[in-house]
Amino acid sequence: MLELKVELGERSYPIYIGAGCLAMAECFASHIKGRKVMIVTNETVSPLYEAQLRKSLAGFEVDCVVLPDGEAYKNWDSLSQIFDALLESAHSRQTTIVALGGGVVGDMAGFAAASYQRGVDFLQVPTTVLSQVDSSVGGKTAINHPLGKNMIGAFYQPKAVVIDTLSLQTLPEREVSAGIAEIIKYGLIRDVSFFEWLEENVERLVDLDQEALVYAIETSCACKAEVVEADELEGGVRAHLNLGHTFGHAIEAFCGYGRWLHGEAVSAGMMMAAELSYLRGDLTKSEVERIEKLLVRAKLPVKGPVDMQPDDYHRLMKLDKKVLDGRVRFVLLKTIGQAVVTDQYLPADLDSVLRQAASLPS
Amino acid sequence: MLELKVELGERSYPIYIGAGCLAMAECFASHIKGRKVMIVTNETVSPLYEAQLRKSLAGFEVDCVVLPDGEAYKNWDSLSQIFDALLESAHSRQTTIVALGGGVVGDMAGFAAASYQRGVDFLQVPTTVLSQVDSSVGGKTAINHPLGKNMIGAFYQPKAVVIDTLSLQTLPEREVSAGIAEIIKYGLIRDVSFFEWLEENVERLVDLDQEALVYAIETSCACKAEVVEADELEGGVRAHLNLGHTFGHAIEAFCGYGRWLHGEAVSAGMMMAAELSYLRGDLTKSEVERIEKLLVRAKLPVKGPVDMQPDDYHRLMKLDKKVLDGRVRFVLLKTIGQAVVTDQYLPADLDSVLRQAASLPS
Repeated sequence: MLELKVELGERSYPIYIGAGCLAMAECFASHIKGRKVMIVTNETVSPLYEAQLRKSLAGFEVDCVVLPDGEAYKNWDSLSQIFDALLESAHSRQTTIVALGGGVVGDMAGFAAASYQRGVDFLQVPTTVLSQVDSSVGGKTAINHPLGKNMIGAFYQPKAVVIDTLSLQTLPEREVSAGIAEIIKYGLIRDVSFFEWLEENVERLVDLDQEALVYAIETSCACKAEVVEADELEGGVRAHLNLGHTFGHAIEAFCGYGRWLHGEAVSAGMMMAAELSYLRGDLTKSEVERIEKLLVRAKLPVKGPVDMQPDDYHRLMKLDKKVLDGRVRFVLLKTIGQAVVTDQYLPADLDSVLRQAASLPS
Repeated sequence: MLELKVELGERSYPIYIGAGCLAMAECFASHIKGRKVMIVTNETVSPLYEAQLRKSLAGFEVDCVVLPDGEAYKNWDSLSQIFDALLESAHSRQTTIVALGGGVVGDMAGFAAASYQRGVDFLQVPTTVLSQVDSSVGGKTAINHPLGKNMIGAFYQPKAVVIDTLSLQTLPEREVSAGIAEIIKYGLIRDVSFFEWLEENVERLVDLDQEALVYAIETSCACKAEVVEADELEGGVRAHLNLGHTFGHAIEAFCGYGRWLHGEAVSAGMMMAAELSYLRGDLTKSEVERIEKLLVRAKLPVKGPVDMQPDDYHRLMKLDKKVLDGRVRFVLLKTIGQAVVTDQYLPADLDSVLRQAASLPS
């Protein structure tokens, strides 16, 4: 088992990574201050891993709330179920919330922890590739609003994160690929040698080779930790983590959350960012092709939904959090391994990218 | 106009206090970073002060959401109206939310600011005595849950607070008194000489003498600022600010929020805390009588609702945030001007206090 420390002053916390972590009680007990624990999970993950987690929490009073599964349920109604469960079982400020599941469970349990009685302790047990490399570092929690994704939330750090790579064996292939999209992102924005490692090894990740998974997840978490340590509240460099996300969020909003997985939308979005970076004169054509090839090998989409038109992107991107007083800014690439945030691009180039994503003649 | 600084490192902010502040554009402009502002107010305050505030915000793009008035509306539905308004008018992370109204408006607008896009800027214009001396310092924001008051919220500091004592002239007498309850609280928990000043001057506050108001509000805010500066996240001494609140919250929950004003419930609660402190052997009988006399002169209740029984208190207090793993702790008084947090009291003494509050024979 590896231990990676996220250094955020008095909000620092460890990430435990390894095959079989979930069964190690010591990963949990030292991070729980009271007697009561509330597990938040969903109806898919609960039958697979709740019993194992409860064993690791022996000695605590454990309650559990099981939410419906899916991004479509990342809303106030589900959040409200967590608050109801906490209050009905009289959980005090001393309680600890443990998120067991993917990004949706983590985001909701985290926001519930941030706002229940103005903040209680929070542990994360991410069970998808995406949540292991993304939400395990950074403290972003949120729910969706009908008018936009992640619009209501908080920056709130967990006390510890426990990543069990064995839990990925029950994950649908499509979700494995969606998680790899975020892993590729770290190579693209800050680490060309990791990108090259991925060009050598991406099939091992798709096939759930445990050694490759531990390496890629650790590298991704360490990369994200560096960025978040430098910029906890997303004032500067942290925005780089949103490569592909402005386009991606528009795709998810268009599809009504659920038809496209987050990582799939980000994959198409990264491809669009790469194309726009090329038109801006930064990326070379060959770099764009290397990115496309790697995404395809990871079984990821490189275009948007066929029924989504350029106007749909424009309309939905206006609601993105990175809109600065009306003007859409993008995270683009200077080269593979180096990102930049900018609103300096030609509207005609953006149109061309959107037409290509929609498979329209340019 | 006075300026009081709340010192919280990079979260420090000024409180402007004076007659006519609301008309001073300079109190606002330097604290607004973007072009857009969302005023959050209610249907009672809007017709009285919204136009004046808009004048002070000339030059900004100003939207406004008007909520129903009352503690009964401090819930998710109202919060949701704020999010809807922000998203429908495409407010970005650069927006500033301005709360214009009492504690309910401030708590909701503050929590909306804390959680909209994971945090946007927030200015407070409190228009009641209670909110001027209470919510203007401390960064507590929240909404109620059917099972408990202020159960969902955040610690979130405003960028500035603008207190216009003239705005109290439109406040119902009952609400003026309710606010004075919190002013008296500051004397009780840490400042015996302020308590003595109140024994000399309480009628001037009831009569809205502007000079007395500015002095009492400034003294209260400064007192609360000292406490909050020492303990921003309520780990220790800050709990003293909850004198009377454990009993008071039970009263408010019992009455369904609205029948009793918060300050009225706190007044009865402080009297109960004083009685329990006396039975514990700390306060003298004569101190208890001085407290009762001052509260009565401020036109405040010194007993609980006639229809509320000791069992109702027990049941509802179990849900209080100060319950530490099941045991109810109270803020009590060692003497006038000195508070203590403790769970060391005889159950029989608590029963006796609750029977007295319910006007039952002891």
